Amino acid sequence: MYRSHNCGELNASHNNTEVTLAGWVQKSRDKGFMNWVDLRDRYGITQLIFDESRTDKTVFELAKTLGREFVIQVKGTVIEREAKNKNIPTGDIEILVSELTILNAALTPPFTIEDETDGGEDIRMKYRYLDIRRNPVKNSLLFRHKVAMEVRKYLSDLDFCEVETPYLIKSTPEGARDFVVPSRMNEGQFYALPQSPQTFKQLLMVGGMDKYFQIVKCFRDEDLRADRQPEFTQIDCEMAFVEQEDILNIFEGLTRHLLSTIKGIEVEKFPRITYDYAMKTYGNDKPDIRFDMKFGELNEVAQHKEFPVFNAAELVVGIAAPGCATYTRKEIDNLIDWVKRPQVGASGMVYAKYELDGSIKSSVDKFYDQEDLKKWAEITGAKPGDLILVLSGPANKTRAQLSALRMELATRLGLRNPEVFAPLWVVDFPLLEQDEENGRWHAMHHPFTSPKPEDMALLETDPGKVRANAYDMVLNGNEIGGGSIRIHDKATQQLMFKYLGFTEEEAKAQFGFLMDAFQFGAPPHGGLAFGLDRLVAILGGQETIRDFIAFPKNNSGRDVMIDAPSLIDEKQLEELHIKLRS
Amino acid sequence: MYRSHNCGELNASHNNTEVTLAGWVQKSRDKGFMNWVDLRDRYGITQLIFDESRTDKTVFELAKTLGREFVIQVKGTVIEREAKNKNIPTGDIEILVSELTILNAALTPPFTIEDETDGGEDIRMKYRYLDIRRNPVKNSLLFRHKVAMEVRKYLSDLDFCEVETPYLIKSTPEGARDFVVPSRMNEGQFYALPQSPQTFKQLLMVGGMDKYFQIVKCFRDEDLRADRQPEFTQIDCEMAFVEQEDILNIFEGLTRHLLSTIKGIEVEKFPRITYDYAMKTYGNDKPDIRFDMKFGELNEVAQHKEFPVFNAAELVVGIAAPGCATYTRKEIDNLIDWVKRPQVGASGMVYAKYELDGSIKSSVDKFYDQEDLKKWAEITGAKPGDLILVLSGPANKTRAQLSALRMELATRLGLRNPEVFAPLWVVDFPLLEQDEENGRWHAMHHPFTSPKPEDMALLETDPGKVRANAYDMVLNGNEIGGGSIRIHDKATQQLMFKYLGFTEEEAKAQFGFLMDAFQFGAPPHGGLAFGLDRLVAILGGQETIRDFIAFPKNNSGRDVMIDAPSLIDEKQLEELHIKLRS
Repeated sequence: MYRSHNCGELNASHNNTEVTLAGWVQKSRDKGFMNWVDLRDRYGITQLIFDESRTDKTVFELAKTLGREFVIQVKGTVIEREAKNKNIPTGDIEILVSELTILNAALTPPFTIEDETDGGEDIRMKYRYLDIRRNPVKNSLLFRHKVAMEVRKYLSDLDFCEVETPYLIKSTPEGARDFVVPSRMNEGQFYALPQSPQTFKQLLMVGGMDKYFQIVKCFRDEDLRADRQPEFTQIDCEMAFVEQEDILNIFEGLTRHLLSTIKGIEVEKFPRITYDYAMKTYGNDKPDIRFDMKFGELNEVAQHKEFPVFNAAELVVGIAAPGCATYTRKEIDNLIDWVKRPQVGASGMVYAKYELDGSIKSSVDKFYDQEDLKKWAEITGAKPGDLILVLSGPANKTRAQLSALRMELATRLGLRNPEVFAPLWVVDFPLLEQDEENGRWHAMHHPFTSPKPEDMALLETDPGKVRANAYDMVLNGNEIGGGSIRIHDKATQQLMFKYLGFTEEEAKAQFGFLMDAFQFGAPPHGGLAFGLDRLVAILGGQETIRDFIAFPKNNSGRDVMIDAPSLIDEKQLEELHIKLRS
Repeated sequence: MYRSHNCGELNASHNNTEVTLAGWVQKSRDKGFMNWVDLRDRYGITQLIFDESRTDKTVFELAKTLGREFVIQVKGTVIEREAKNKNIPTGDIEILVSELTILNAALTPPFTIEDETDGGEDIRMKYRYLDIRRNPVKNSLLFRHKVAMEVRKYLSDLDFCEVETPYLIKSTPEGARDFVVPSRMNEGQFYALPQSPQTFKQLLMVGGMDKYFQIVKCFRDEDLRADRQPEFTQIDCEMAFVEQEDILNIFEGLTRHLLSTIKGIEVEKFPRITYDYAMKTYGNDKPDIRFDMKFGELNEVAQHKEFPVFNAAELVVGIAAPGCATYTRKEIDNLIDWVKRPQVGASGMVYAKYELDGSIKSSVDKFYDQEDLKKWAEITGAKPGDLILVLSGPANKTRAQLSALRMELATRLGLRNPEVFAPLWVVDFPLLEQDEENGRWHAMHHPFTSPKPEDMALLETDPGKVRANAYDMVLNGNEIGGGSIRIHDKATQQLMFKYLGFTEEEAKAQFGFLMDAFQFGAPPHGGLAFGLDRLVAILGGQETIRDFIAFPKNNSGRDVMIDAPSLIDEKQLEELHIKLRS
């Protein structure tokens, strides 16, 4: 036993107790005749005191040699501290040290082990094991564990069974790029790492497991955008004999349970909106509803007047920025410049200030009178004191631009408080989306998603109009989970593959096992998957997921700490029946 | 909602309730005017009754079309059953069906969905989703989940934090063969899938996480012996500021907790024996101690007599088979044949029957008198009625042969009851073992294992004698877990790599990050890992692990259900900068 207590648990109730502690030197203050050391471990910090008049001389001298991050063990007595520190649980006491052992010395770390460190991203990743000693990272990992445990408890209590599905599976051309694994025993053949356990969880439903979940790593070999990882973790779930309503209820319950147990926050029943409503109202299928600023479509009231820009536009759409009627010309110009940036891409913006006296002053007063502008206010929900901002152009693009503006305004207005949680469901997603380049139809969710029965007939005539039994859970502007009711009969699945451009042979070669399975008594089933990395980051009130992943990869997919990937031996390549291209 | 209840929960208290059930047709018995159907789901079986005089005619006729494994939904009334079945929880009731919906038809399954099926291993693997419907497999998966949950709860309650370590790591030539993953973004380079998260968990200790665990998939590209899988699951654990004693206590506690909560069995404090004792006493480092039959070394009493075979042998060693003095000549010959099989490899066997009258009758009476043989009995612990069996030859080989015989006898004598649990610790493993072919030294556990400080000096002079702070947990003749106290300073780790034949460059290239980490304040640490697949199989009272894995691979590493591994596109190969060897 290296310690009798950890560094976070001693307090005044332990006064005069003999204790043994072990940990890292956070810092030391040498006052000549007195030397204080902050000893740190995962659980907290305890102050040690070495006093020339009370401490053995050898121990006292040894303490002066301690550097930051040295690993030490001390024996001593808990005593009341003179200058109490009310900010930490151990702040009432200190340890008068009688024995000191240096368990391991430490080089000066390349960055400070403090909440606010001087280390940049790159150096912290290279020495991630030091970064993990910092509270923000350490607490994120502990938080992640707590969330995962609560998920498991909640689902287990509801009879969900966690089943491990295989990691060495089959490569399919559908969807994102697979990571593949050459097989030594099966020459010229490859396994793939799963992008998700989708087909396996469906087979578990065919197998009668009834309620499945798994917290599981998934893999996608995509070019990494910021805050994407080649390996990521899903809470993967599936249920048999359910309709969409059952799934929404169960997993709304899970999220409510997490908010309640982890954050102490009780939320109302989640709003449910359709995909179409979300796109029209927020320009976005994952709207942040912590704030309002709903879109108001102004075509009827703003077109057929003298303003040529609006008349030529497919869509004229505005939002009311609350309390922004006081914006100066400079502030408004700044917003106009913001929407004109290439990342947003608007060609201009019209504004109208709804003054507190009830009058409206717009940038297009030449074309619209007060009566016109009052209608704008009505439709955008603007109140006196608000600023109406209007974009126009092709419908989809303009909605996306206004959505970006809406988020930017919310940020500027401080409406995106990470400790406020506004979850909702978006339902009735389109089954298919069309590739703009080649006109081919793709599954918006995945090829196993069931069309709504009442829309089946549209598959032949107007495939873009077919709605799916698919749903996303959205939290604070992020899609945190998504799923669908699945196809569970062979004929429909075959039809789906046909519409997605698979030949019969391709469908059979890739997914024959699933369609075979559907012939042996497949129950109706459906499910969803949460992105755990994102979920814990949002619950933790953070924007980025990296601190919630112990050993993340950088944007080139590299682990800079262990320096992977790396070259391998020619002998290994030979055994795997492959060679490098020159 | 497809159902109001599941198929395992209705009983007499529900009489006269209207219910909706859904599930699979287990079987139906058509008596013409009466038709019974057993409806099955994960939770049980409920009997349905269709009665010509009480059931709507359309429903009655439709029921006659139901085949095995059809998926149906029924509405009806719970009624008291005439012929009660006391073997199942729902045996007091049946459902008088009023509505019947066929949710999905089913082809006749290729094997019967019964506890004892007519399907062979191959066909069951191809249609694993049907195999999972069978109780033995379904219950094994549920059991596995239960064990995993208890492990997580127990460790979480002790402040262990589950941390996910990466799957895409770096290939190292040490140990077993890696599965590798070509990198698209880093041309010519490869990730490896982890054989264990060993270095990462050590880095988490350096990072101050203090107590880590993870239930995690690991990968080894080895030729698959029976009951080995290329991907397998570990309960991986590590603790900082601990000595061997702390780890043994914590994880003995975990195992005791599992036996208690899962099996309702309380076990005594685990015996601890050294590796040397285990090898000498059981011929094996994972002894099955559900039964006795300890080895007795007979060199002193059996050599220097007239029997040349024993005189020439390095080791003469025997065991007492309890109650086997009554074995006939034929039975003994059968045992002799058994030890002479190539798989065991003994050249012969001497026996001595310890008769109930106290006399001893041996196959070597020519060379040994009763006084000699009494000493044999004393040393092997034989009592009147036992049969002493003696092998001789080179020490290691002979011990292995006698160990095989000991296990075989225990099996024949019914001493290996799978519902009896006899755990123990084997400690003080050798640090190194020598390759018989090239004389090189290998780490017996792994290169991060700490030698016992008191044996360090032997590293130079007699490396085979150096003991490690390494330990295995053994249960019923299986190593279910193993671990060690780790090296935590750079100098010792460098020395270890040197003894293992690494050049300084190789050590730095492969494990430089770990040795660097040790310089920044590494705490003393150690841990262990359990093999979850094996652990659940043993706790479940089974010999083989396959039924405890949802989708296992066959002995060629193939998933015969999804037909993986498989060929991939030339385009994929190109993107990965590799090509096949022709």
